[in-house]
Amino acid sequence: MNYENIFNTAQHAFLQFKKTSGKIKADFLEKIAYNIEAEKANLIPLASSESNLPEGRITGELGRTVGQIKLFAQLVEEGSWLEAVIDHADPERTPAPKPDIRRFLTALGPVVVFGASNFPLAFSTAGGDTVSALAAGCPVIYKGHPAHPKTSKLVGSLITKAAQENGLPLGLFTHIEGGIDVGQELVKHPIAKAVAFTGSFKGGKSLFDLANQRKEPIPVYAEMGSVNPIITLENKLGSNIEALAKAFVSSLTLGAGQFCTNPGLIMVPQVHEDAFSDAVKKEIQDIVGAPMLHEGIAKAYYESLDKLKRKEELEWLHVSSTNDIIKAHPAMAKIKANDWLKEELFQEEVFGSFAILVIYENAEELLSIAQKLHGQLTITIWGEDSELEQSADIISHLEEKCGRILFKGVPTGVEVGFAMQHGGPYPSTSDSRSTSVGAYAIKRFARPIAFQDMPEKFLPDALKESNPLGIWRTVDGEFKK
Amino acid sequence: MNYENIFNTAQHAFLQFKKTSGKIKADFLEKIAYNIEAEKANLIPLASSESNLPEGRITGELGRTVGQIKLFAQLVEEGSWLEAVIDHADPERTPAPKPDIRRFLTALGPVVVFGASNFPLAFSTAGGDTVSALAAGCPVIYKGHPAHPKTSKLVGSLITKAAQENGLPLGLFTHIEGGIDVGQELVKHPIAKAVAFTGSFKGGKSLFDLANQRKEPIPVYAEMGSVNPIITLENKLGSNIEALAKAFVSSLTLGAGQFCTNPGLIMVPQVHEDAFSDAVKKEIQDIVGAPMLHEGIAKAYYESLDKLKRKEELEWLHVSSTNDIIKAHPAMAKIKANDWLKEELFQEEVFGSFAILVIYENAEELLSIAQKLHGQLTITIWGEDSELEQSADIISHLEEKCGRILFKGVPTGVEVGFAMQHGGPYPSTSDSRSTSVGAYAIKRFARPIAFQDMPEKFLPDALKESNPLGIWRTVDGEFKK
Repeated sequence: MNYENIFNTAQHAFLQFKKTSGKIKADFLEKIAYNIEAEKANLIPLASSESNLPEGRITGELGRTVGQIKLFAQLVEEGSWLEAVIDHADPERTPAPKPDIRRFLTALGPVVVFGASNFPLAFSTAGGDTVSALAAGCPVIYKGHPAHPKTSKLVGSLITKAAQENGLPLGLFTHIEGGIDVGQELVKHPIAKAVAFTGSFKGGKSLFDLANQRKEPIPVYAEMGSVNPIITLENKLGSNIEALAKAFVSSLTLGAGQFCTNPGLIMVPQVHEDAFSDAVKKEIQDIVGAPMLHEGIAKAYYESLDKLKRKEELEWLHVSSTNDIIKAHPAMAKIKANDWLKEELFQEEVFGSFAILVIYENAEELLSIAQKLHGQLTITIWGEDSELEQSADIISHLEEKCGRILFKGVPTGVEVGFAMQHGGPYPSTSDSRSTSVGAYAIKRFARPIAFQDMPEKFLPDALKESNPLGIWRTVDGEFKK
Repeated sequence: MNYENIFNTAQHAFLQFKKTSGKIKADFLEKIAYNIEAEKANLIPLASSESNLPEGRITGELGRTVGQIKLFAQLVEEGSWLEAVIDHADPERTPAPKPDIRRFLTALGPVVVFGASNFPLAFSTAGGDTVSALAAGCPVIYKGHPAHPKTSKLVGSLITKAAQENGLPLGLFTHIEGGIDVGQELVKHPIAKAVAFTGSFKGGKSLFDLANQRKEPIPVYAEMGSVNPIITLENKLGSNIEALAKAFVSSLTLGAGQFCTNPGLIMVPQVHEDAFSDAVKKEIQDIVGAPMLHEGIAKAYYESLDKLKRKEELEWLHVSSTNDIIKAHPAMAKIKANDWLKEELFQEEVFGSFAILVIYENAEELLSIAQKLHGQLTITIWGEDSELEQSADIISHLEEKCGRILFKGVPTGVEVGFAMQHGGPYPSTSDSRSTSVGAYAIKRFARPIAFQDMPEKFLPDALKESNPLGIWRTVDGEFKK
């Protein structure tokens, strides 16, 4: 593969595309969404067969994929995401006249996006990373995930077709197949200006290191894994043990546990240890193992369990008698908080439907847990209002450890909207200042540029005096349209 | 020095300070500004004697320092910088009810700030980095610059005094003295959550690498140097040769050339080579060398010139006969674009009043220059409107190489306002997505956090339904107050 050619074509496309209107970008995104919907009948069975995910789940994921494309189309057509700011000149100012300065966000340049195996549509070829990068004005060099090659190529062709249909330049999107070495070559290319990745800590960390060792380091947005702890407080849990155990097990085993927000840790007060353990056992025992994405992932799941089985501190609440070549039989172990606190291994993500139930004695121990937790995408806390009030200090610590904190429900099921934050402190992501889901994901692919005393006729529309785009802007410090 | 104790105290202060109201933060900042102004009579001669900068310059810098503190006070008191976003619940939504999600920016945690030698006030102890971090809610562990130790300590005491006077926690600000090893220890401490630095490429890059090698990598905002090219186009230059030569030389030699936006490169069309060279020579010959910040900086300046003097491609337009122990005698050399394009050394910053005049033959050569330029804080282009129109392609490339592009005036003199972008593509800064001057500097020290289904009474004021702060928020996708 001639990467030089691919990147040069992308750079060429970039210089044209960065100045394209929000309307043209929105039409392009809408066309991608249309092409995906039109190909639904082929795409759903194909993605299902390549991922082992049931067609119902893929149908939902396709809807989500189309929905998030439309969200970005809406965002760029409206245009206020550009953060336009105008400080007018003051020629009379002393001791020196004040210049006219106008600032907005401009696209970074061609970016490299990696597909994820667990969402063959929503976090893959036309997933949130690709689409938010295109929306920002960045051409995408996309490395397809080898677990779903046909789905990836098919969706890639739908993006290319959309670009052609809309008369946009070649090189806005390039689909590349290959392994780890190919991904590394892409990240190292001098024209690449950012990287987006969803996957394992090991994979994300290695790309992060590679990107920082370049002559010109570039940002890496890696979403790397999280155990998404659920903290239960005494009264709330006590009055709902069975319902909460059911909700928890359902979230744990959804999609064979292959979600980045899968809850792999649950903290339970000692007083409810037996009742909650029993309720969980009752819920989990009838769950039939579901096929995982591929055999390699199933193998890794059982290897992680085998490693944990050698740890004497763990008491196993549920585990299938035999390992499976493809299915993830759910598993759960229990541990005293005092032992959990001593061993980092118990915080490592096991990709699949496995969780550790941590029994804590009192609020002091729970505070120690909160302080010890690694960075997470999400943390959930189930408590009565009065308990939450008493736990203010603990909650304050938990906030430091996550990107999203939930007070009801379960962490799986990530809303695509304006307020979503899907990105937490390290090591859950490489950059807690960013989100890979929701409207703000577009900001990852832009940087500010200021124009000083630029003649009005050369200014981008977003910064022209008359505000032809009708967007929200900060003018001399005031927010206005 | 017991760093453990310092960081623990800062972390303790952080957990309290992050929830402090914008009003309390603003009062604290205003008190710092007040204390600095009240100490003016001591501070100005002290900073002047330690930096060799004239009292007039220090007086201006003090005004700027106070002005930027007040800008951040205004920003946090108003509160819209928090980027509050609310997506309301929809319990009726199918197939699953929609949760209530609210997002805003929260402070990163304790941060390490390094002082700069060339701005003993505005980029030092109570400079833009410290003040924007405090405004965001981050305690600051500040490493004073050894070039102005007494100024640094005095300003540090004024910040501490402001915290005490306003009843704020110990540990919000700590002043530390020491060399490179001390700075490295601070950056490596696990409690540190970000680093801000202004100085040399070598210094910034080493902190960037160190921060990325931590178990938990943290963002480094390093402003590292730039040659701030000025591009002149034929007609504009031809009709103003003497005035533009004067403006250029004045910017080049201002403050002994010790500004990060000092213009170290100027591109001139061949047709004006002789006239512009003559005009520059005439302007520069009478400029008396001014004392640099310290002898080490003067030594480095002359060493850089000696290195360049060995380059045969350079023709020297002006150079003092002898090197000086402390004063920066201005110097200028001339080169053909064709030779300039071949050698990276000619793009390296020489800290002081030295510039290279690059003679280009035609638009094609100018385009090659634009493509070859390293990342810059600023690029200035002087052209008639009709010339700018013809140079659209060149300007498009120049935009990719800088954080601020000027169409009038000179790059020195950085406005502190809402629209300022002082941060450009690598290697001018380590993070082109950030600015170290102006209102947006505060965003460097915050990250988003989302609250899902949090009971109203526990929500931060910025996210409460009734909008008690009266700030601009995105509610269900619409901007409103």
